Amino acid sequence: MLDAGLICHLGLEVDGWPVVVPTSYGRQGDRLYLHGSAASRTLRAAKQQVPICVTVSLVDGLVLARSVFSHSVNYRSAMVFGYPEVCDGADKLEGLRVITEHMAPGQWQYVRRPTDKELAQTTVLRLGLEQASVKIRSGGPGDSGATDEDMGLWAGELPIRIGSLEPVADPNGPTGPLPEHLAVLGERLAKRLAPPG
Amino acid sequence: MLDAGLICHLGLEVDGWPVVVPTSYGRQGDRLYLHGSAASRTLRAAKQQVPICVTVSLVDGLVLARSVFSHSVNYRSAMVFGYPEVCDGADKLEGLRVITEHMAPGQWQYVRRPTDKELAQTTVLRLGLEQASVKIRSGGPGDSGATDEDMGLWAGELPIRIGSLEPVADPNGPTGPLPEHLAVLGERLAKRLAPPG
Repeated sequence: MLDAGLICHLGLEVDGWPVVVPTSYGRQGDRLYLHGSAASRTLRAAKQQVPICVTVSLVDGLVLARSVFSHSVNYRSAMVFGYPEVCDGADKLEGLRVITEHMAPGQWQYVRRPTDKELAQTTVLRLGLEQASVKIRSGGPGDSGATDEDMGLWAGELPIRIGSLEPVADPNGPTGPLPEHLAVLGERLAKRLAPPG
Repeated sequence: MLDAGLICHLGLEVDGWPVVVPTSYGRQGDRLYLHGSAASRTLRAAKQQVPICVTVSLVDGLVLARSVFSHSVNYRSAMVFGYPEVCDGADKLEGLRVITEHMAPGQWQYVRRPTDKELAQTTVLRLGLEQASVKIRSGGPGDSGATDEDMGLWAGELPIRIGSLEPVADPNGPTGPLPEHLAVLGERLAKRLAPPG
């Protein structure tokens, strides 16, 4: 599930308030890497040895039932809790590799690597996967068998899927030929994000 | 933006830890309604006059740049902060109406309304929109004009869009004919979730 998602939601306390921000991430083994600007207030707070929660949610469908009460959402969600470590040196570079490859497999080999100046402007956090939980809801509405069935209403699921889209070239600068790993990226992501089975 | 999203991420502190959970929601005027099971530990905590953060994020595309550093995600995100109120009586029913209609416009009139027993099993929270912020990133990679352009690499955006899908009838019980508002729901959601312009 962590390998399927595109972004995560990072939650932590900043100045006494809970804050939830969308963030890029990637997983390697039992490590989750999170990416952000070194200037971000949330990322700065996350470096101060505070507990965080990282949630990845994938919406698979809307569950359209015969009653308001039985309406639901089919989804997969993973929550990871812990105290993040700030990555430095080789580990920071490894984190950026994992995050870049999570977004677009093949890009790390293809594009220019970060300079020291760029690395200094980037924060990479590492979180272990020891404290994690997963929730899944799938299938049709749960109101089958109830007297609601007799109402003659339509009930079922509207699946939510990412379409397989084509890359759009940068309108502001010259670009080279589209490499194979980016030509197939849309199709790969659509498959990756779809629920199993 | 709040009207476009399908789910939000609710963040708050539970037993000293930040917790981020995906949740159904809906907006009416300057009120955000959140839905959950009365048995949920997170929802129970949210009823104790604690501050919460509600974030709605829409991923519009992956920004594939000429350098690792300039990679990004095109997204729209809204964050709302405040102390939620627990809805009761007519306000609770109004909240459920707003949340149901947010998910599938037309459903509130079409399906069976909640019984008193069902209402007791449901928690609806209300949050004002006074403290809110919005972030948007759109467009191509920001590395145009840099010397990176000379590398002859392909750069651009992979748009992420929801496909327009067909409803699937409940396999576990008899369903009536598909009503018009559900027949067009997939197409409506795909349009609603797509970035403006």
